[in-house]
Amino acid sequence: MDHFKRYFPILDWGRDYDRLALGEDLTAAVIVTLMLIPQSLAYAMLAGLPPETGLYASIAPILLYAVFGTSRALAVGPVAVVSLLTASAIGQVVEPGTASYVAAALTLAALSGAILLGLGLLRLGFLANFLSHPVIAGFITASGVLIAASQLKHVMGVEAEGHSLIELGLSLVQHAPDTHGPTLLIGGAAVAFLYFVRTGLNPLLTRLGLPPRLAGFITKAGPVFAVIATTALTWGLDLEARGVAVVGVVPQTLPPLTAPDWSPELIRALFIPAVLISIIGFVESVSVAKTLAAKKRQRIDADQELIGLGAANLGAAFTGGYPVTGGFARSVVNFDAGARTPAAGAFTALGLALAALTLTPLIYFLPKATLAATIIVAVLSLVDFSILRATWRYSTSDFIAVLATILLTLSLGVEAGVAAGVGLSILLHVTKTFKPHIAEVGRVPGTEHFRNIHRHQVETTPSLLTLRIDESLYFANANFLEDMLLKRLSQDAEAVRNVVLMCSAVNEIDYSALETLEALNARLEDMGVRLHLSEVKGPVMDKLEHTHFLRDLSGEVFLSQHDAWAALGRSG
Amino acid sequence: MDHFKRYFPILDWGRDYDRLALGEDLTAAVIVTLMLIPQSLAYAMLAGLPPETGLYASIAPILLYAVFGTSRALAVGPVAVVSLLTASAIGQVVEPGTASYVAAALTLAALSGAILLGLGLLRLGFLANFLSHPVIAGFITASGVLIAASQLKHVMGVEAEGHSLIELGLSLVQHAPDTHGPTLLIGGAAVAFLYFVRTGLNPLLTRLGLPPRLAGFITKAGPVFAVIATTALTWGLDLEARGVAVVGVVPQTLPPLTAPDWSPELIRALFIPAVLISIIGFVESVSVAKTLAAKKRQRIDADQELIGLGAANLGAAFTGGYPVTGGFARSVVNFDAGARTPAAGAFTALGLALAALTLTPLIYFLPKATLAATIIVAVLSLVDFSILRATWRYSTSDFIAVLATILLTLSLGVEAGVAAGVGLSILLHVTKTFKPHIAEVGRVPGTEHFRNIHRHQVETTPSLLTLRIDESLYFANANFLEDMLLKRLSQDAEAVRNVVLMCSAVNEIDYSALETLEALNARLEDMGVRLHLSEVKGPVMDKLEHTHFLRDLSGEVFLSQHDAWAALGRSG
Repeated sequence: MDHFKRYFPILDWGRDYDRLALGEDLTAAVIVTLMLIPQSLAYAMLAGLPPETGLYASIAPILLYAVFGTSRALAVGPVAVVSLLTASAIGQVVEPGTASYVAAALTLAALSGAILLGLGLLRLGFLANFLSHPVIAGFITASGVLIAASQLKHVMGVEAEGHSLIELGLSLVQHAPDTHGPTLLIGGAAVAFLYFVRTGLNPLLTRLGLPPRLAGFITKAGPVFAVIATTALTWGLDLEARGVAVVGVVPQTLPPLTAPDWSPELIRALFIPAVLISIIGFVESVSVAKTLAAKKRQRIDADQELIGLGAANLGAAFTGGYPVTGGFARSVVNFDAGARTPAAGAFTALGLALAALTLTPLIYFLPKATLAATIIVAVLSLVDFSILRATWRYSTSDFIAVLATILLTLSLGVEAGVAAGVGLSILLHVTKTFKPHIAEVGRVPGTEHFRNIHRHQVETTPSLLTLRIDESLYFANANFLEDMLLKRLSQDAEAVRNVVLMCSAVNEIDYSALETLEALNARLEDMGVRLHLSEVKGPVMDKLEHTHFLRDLSGEVFLSQHDAWAALGRSG
Repeated sequence: MDHFKRYFPILDWGRDYDRLALGEDLTAAVIVTLMLIPQSLAYAMLAGLPPETGLYASIAPILLYAVFGTSRALAVGPVAVVSLLTASAIGQVVEPGTASYVAAALTLAALSGAILLGLGLLRLGFLANFLSHPVIAGFITASGVLIAASQLKHVMGVEAEGHSLIELGLSLVQHAPDTHGPTLLIGGAAVAFLYFVRTGLNPLLTRLGLPPRLAGFITKAGPVFAVIATTALTWGLDLEARGVAVVGVVPQTLPPLTAPDWSPELIRALFIPAVLISIIGFVESVSVAKTLAAKKRQRIDADQELIGLGAANLGAAFTGGYPVTGGFARSVVNFDAGARTPAAGAFTALGLALAALTLTPLIYFLPKATLAATIIVAVLSLVDFSILRATWRYSTSDFIAVLATILLTLSLGVEAGVAAGVGLSILLHVTKTFKPHIAEVGRVPGTEHFRNIHRHQVETTPSLLTLRIDESLYFANANFLEDMLLKRLSQDAEAVRNVVLMCSAVNEIDYSALETLEALNARLEDMGVRLHLSEVKGPVMDKLEHTHFLRDLSGEVFLSQHDAWAALGRSG
């Protein structure tokens, strides 16, 4: 039963559900639904898909996540970065605006769902750790810039194409003379209005004496207001006839049952992008879920999250959606609005289904410029270059990784950017181990503690040289230790009779390093110097135990550096 | 002057050269020359080149290495593994047996020389550390098997092709019905004779009472005897007319001045193989040089070796040779024969030049089967599968790397094999850091030393939990620490009031790990548990110093774990 419960977290909260929780969940659902209607339409447009796809992608996935997910506040659906990745992935394979483009989006969601589910069942959630925080932060910032740039064409009412900032920028400049006045007016006003709603409205309302909850609710409803106002304006002034692009006919129906395109060629082409979308979506979603869970002392099980998101994406694939994940903004809204359980998500799904059934005829005249404005203002919150300053101050290699991620994402596109970020951060981490920090140590007076002679006031003995090796010894750095030790000895060849390698930071000695130590032992023995080890850890000692090296070692293995000092340090 | 001397090691030994050294060097040169004549011809054949190329590749390179190299005993010239790599590299681009094949070999030598020289001038010799010892051992063993297999066709007198053991084996089986009887007789006899010379002759002669030096000399001359005997036999019985393949016409001249083919297309195709040849040749050569130098307390400067080998390869490129490096067998013979200085190499070059001028007409009737037999017996000494057993006993990941290298070299060829070996060994090393060893530690009674509670009899206090993290903390493993610590605390949530992270083995904390530690600190604070650090190393502390983390830390940073114990351990 417990095992069963692990895979169905709904059993955990479902049986304690009461009227109080119901009331709170319903309130949250209304607020989130109002927020999601314009956002879902907008993100579908960003992904290059018909607007209704965004609504469909918010219904079944929310319900499935409520059954399988572990977060009580996470709101699953289309999000900006995954929509951009979807557009980039499918755009390389299929012509945008065609029926096969929509079918490919289903395939991408199905692949992504299968990958997430597979990783979850295999309990491989830890793989997401490969995206270092700065790389993710840099990637999301650069994606935000790219997304905002990609929406400018809708605000200006022109055609523009491009996967990178440079391509997009050049294309926009080239088409700037065609800018459509009425569209720019609507789009520009919507951007200004939404930006004001986001930054200035809430403080203003509070200052006017409105209760914070109501002020918050009005702020959340800002995008809906912009949608209603610009739609009414477009209808009233018949702006469609004057060339303002509108959403147009949207089918008035519940999410349809759909089958993804299973052609092997398409699957091959979309597999790598699907992996990328899965991992980035997962990392983003889990970090949101963890942040919110920590506030209520709840726990997030990363492997179960993979299963929840996998189910959500499979749901999207079979109900006319496209890849989804847990979004930051909507989850925070859901949480702040007081959502107690995943049932809030189910009510949101219900609200969106009602909207799909009843409201779709009304959005015929909704200008695309308004949706673009919604996206632009929403993604501005993703853009945060402060990670550059923070890493610059803390660590050069983190800074290089984040800078490369940002520059490559902007110049070559999202896939190259994130691949470079991941590759580079692993490479930089490995590079640091090539020339390890090796400190000559002495005793902190009056203690049994040994520290770097150059940083602390310590006692040393001329006949005893102790080196603390601050890295695992393996093929890439074993020779470095040998060279360094021999160089150090040549400075002081006469005095030193005992060398102790203090291994407190040596977490592994591989076969190559073992051979190097054997050679070093023989070499030192020839020079009349004995080689000792101290503070060798259990796992390393287990491996050394049956080797020639330990049998041939001219010196001893001391449990602690203090034992070595007691035995050897006095003799000088 | 000293700087000048660094690049011309000849200035080091040249000025002290005397008659005694001259005598010893001359003796060594005669022995090595006798050994090199058949070997040079044979390795050229292995590389798919005309036999004289092998002689030419032994003359200028030896002289240039004598000027620029640091080893006093290293004998530079064609070697088995590099010849195989040459055949594999050029065979993919040019039709074997053509003039452009010979020109491509010059290009390969020139590229290889330029790469080695460049690495040496940039002092990048440490890059060779990337080949772990087991990977090299596995690669050389597999190459030995491949080389021996590739020569069987000459011994059987049939045609056979293939880059992998399977292809070669299938091709040989397919052509086995065409086996040429007289060729097989000569080849088989030569293999048997040479094998006896290598393994049984020296002990036999010693037992017969010959002085060891003379016995050694006769043994070294074995291949020359096989060459003379089979050549005479072929000439006497006119076996060429009966279909025994012979070396044929070899130009009677000093090494010609040649210009490599500089076509950009060829350079592009050969660049990666040239990198591979350079690095493998360098690693092999340096390990031989180091072994021999250690016996005489001489030092090898890896960067200067790169320059020496680079010059040797450039020399080969302009005098009709092909890629060369320091060979194990010939260097050991040179050393054992008493070579004192690189002048021994110069005399060897002189001997080979004389051979090229005078002896070449005599080898018209030398059967190719004899050369193949020379190669087969020579490479048998490279084949040593004991590395599999040694790594199996010591370390699983080393074993996997060596096994993969051997299997992939045999099944896919030399380039795939060594690339897989290098990639895999780095990957396996990194993988180990994902789930670091984390030990709960307590105090070894009566000392200030702290060890794993599961391995040692130690003292602990219920209110104090100390974890020693045996790995640098970075993005790939920071979450693992967090999960593990929280799980451990949930077992014992009431008692623990203080958590100490003992950082003696933490060589780095990257930005992602720093953020994780910050979150962990806040989380523990909420639980009423204080977080402390101990034994943080200098370089890590330098980076932490100005961070929020250290300001927000609920506990303290202790210089030693003993200080932490003294402050916190008693309170429980």
